This record gives sequence, C-alpha cells and structure tokens, in this order.
Amino acid sequence: MPVTLSEFRSGMRALAAPVNVITTAIAGERGGLTATAVISLTAEPPQLGVAVNKANGSLKLIEKAGIFAVNVLTHDQLDIGNVFAGATDARGEARFKVGTWATMVTGAPVLKQAKANFDCRVITCFELSTHVLFVGMIEAVRVNAAADPLLYADGCYGGFVRKESREFAQQLALQALELNTAAVFDSPW
Amino acid sequence: MPVTLSEFRSGMRALAAPVNVITTAIAGERGGLTATAVISLTAEPPQLGVAVNKANGSLKLIEKAGIFAVNVLTHDQLDIGNVFAGATDARGEARFKVGTWATMVTGAPVLKQAKANFDCRVITCFELSTHVLFVGMIEAVRVNAAADPLLYADGCYGGFVRKESREFAQQLALQALELNTAAVFDSPW
Repeated sequence: MPVTLSEFRSGMRALAAPVNVITTAIAGERGGLTATAVISLTAEPPQLGVAVNKANGSLKLIEKAGIFAVNVLTHDQLDIGNVFAGATDARGEARFKVGTWATMVTGAPVLKQAKANFDCRVITCFELSTHVLFVGMIEAVRVNAAADPLLYADGCYGGFVRKESREFAQQLALQALELNTAAVFDSPW
Repeated sequence: MPVTLSEFRSGMRALAAPVNVITTAIAGERGGLTATAVISLTAEPPQLGVAVNKANGSLKLIEKAGIFAVNVLTHDQLDIGNVFAGATDARGEARFKVGTWATMVTGAPVLKQAKANFDCRVITCFELSTHVLFVGMIEAVRVNAAADPLLYADGCYGGFVRKESREFAQQLALQALELNTAAVFDSPW
C-alpha cells in the first residue's frame, strides 16, 4: 500500500532542492510557476524534465507553446520565487514585473542574474495522474558560476555551503565560543 | 540546435542536488548506484522518478526486480556515495560492505542512518536515449529530520545551511576578521 500524503510530504521535505521558476510564452502571452521538481535526464542529447501540476494555469500555456525555460534562482531572488509560487495576487503577465527578463533561443522568458537558465523545447511529455512531466531539449544554457543558489529543504529556505566551509565555520564557532562572543551556532553542520 | 555536452554539464553543475544511493534486490542479488537525478512526481498517488543510465549495471537489475529504494545520504555518508558511484573496485554485492542495510516493504535495500529512505515499486518507465526514467510508487518512507543532507553543486560536495544561519555565519566571519583570527571566510554566502 502506498504511503499517505503526509508521509510523502515529510519524505520530500528531506530532499533538498534548488528553487526554480519555470516560464513559457506564446504569441506575447507569458506565464510561469515556481517548482523544485526538475531533473537532469540525458546528456546526449541534452534533456531535462520538469513536473508541472495539471491544476497550474501555466501548464496549458507550456503545452500550447511547446517551449519552457528553467530559471534557477539565487539566494537573493526569493521574492521572485514567491511571486511565481502564487504567494502574491500577481497572475500571468503581472508576475514578470519582478526581475529582469530576456529571451535566448526559444523565446521562453529567461531571468537575468539567475544562477542558471535552461532554454528548452518540449520533446515529449508523460502524464502521471495529477502532473505532466515535460521533457525538454536544452537549446541554450547560461550559468552564473559565482552566484549562490536558493535551496529549499526541511521546510526552510537556505543555501549551499561547501564541505570545507563547514569545517571553517565550525572552527569560527568554536573560536566564538571560546571568546564568549556567541553562545550558539545553529548551522545544520 | 541543442547545447553541447560541455554546456549541458556546466548547466547541471549549477543545479544543487542531494546525493542519493539507488538500490535494488532480486532473489538475493543486490545492486546499487549513486545518483542525483531523483524527482518528486505526484503526491496522490505518492510517486517519484529516478533517471538511470543504461550503461549502469544496476539498470537491468531494477528492471528485473521491479523495485528500488532511494537512500538520501547525510553529510557523513560520502564514503558510501563514493563506493556506489564506482570510485572503488567494489561492484554488486561488495558495495554493501559499507553502511548498515535493512529492508522495509518491497525488499529493496535501505540504508540505515540515511537522511531519508523511499522504498518504491516500479509503476512504469520511460526510455530516453541513454537513460531510463523509472517511476516508482512509494510504499514506505523513513525520514531522519535531524540529519544533515549531503549535497553536490558546482562540482563540490557540501551541505544545506538555513538562511538565518547564513546571517549568523556572516556575523561570525566579521567578528573573526575584527579579531584578526581568520582572514578569509569562504562561505558561498
């Protein structure tokens, strides 16, 4: 017997993931949603997958347009993630008032200053009960190597910290403790 | 025209991801591989997807067994990730010498002390050139909420740090600088 909805959710919260804004456009109409469900599929040809809820207004637009972009957010783009997650009243075109948008090859909106942009053409899609998994051929990529990604895990927003930094942070915390300048260091490490 | 292999790789490196060991078993034969390509698909029913390279020896075993487990590694299980990534000579059963293994519902090997375990039954699979995307119905979940996940991003291993911790870490770094005890704080934040 499958697990319950609450067990599913508790499991998925344990899977840390980048926060992405998936966008599309057709004949001047733009739409987008925030999603963590993005997967690397094949390197040759370069393909990725995006799972979109059928209840989301942008799904039909992606189907019609046949293109989408995955915009990987940086830690200071949480406000953009919130708008595309529907946390504000903004719908459709109004969501693009936050951030600076351009296009690359397919015409799907790409967010400038994102951690990365994947500009994709829909190759095929698979229907899975409540969701559609779009498989996209990557037509263009832009990476901002220096940017810090925005991650979501355990119900919290956060970021990536390198293993070496962890040890350094621990050393700093110990120094702080010894100097009695900070009693608690709540790094998850 | 799709992007080149090197563009694909540079894009994917920007997508921070948990490091997982995917395992399977049939008639006493166990196999497994390390993979970051895991995606949440639908909550109702509880389904996830895993993309496995056809060149990987465990693919045939998953197909035969019709079951797999996703074991989300903690930051101190990097050695296990390396073994299942083929960084050592260990193949097949020999890989299970690292870590402590049990089973839940399906019989697929689940790693104790992992950040999370998803015990899945294969519902369907999609062939995508070099890879197969297995869709698994989640039959059991175990979560270790307190554990710190092992993440991979920008070609480095690391972990998740909460947004609030970031500000605290920055304060510590500033204090360290003022006290001249550490000249560089290389947190990505």
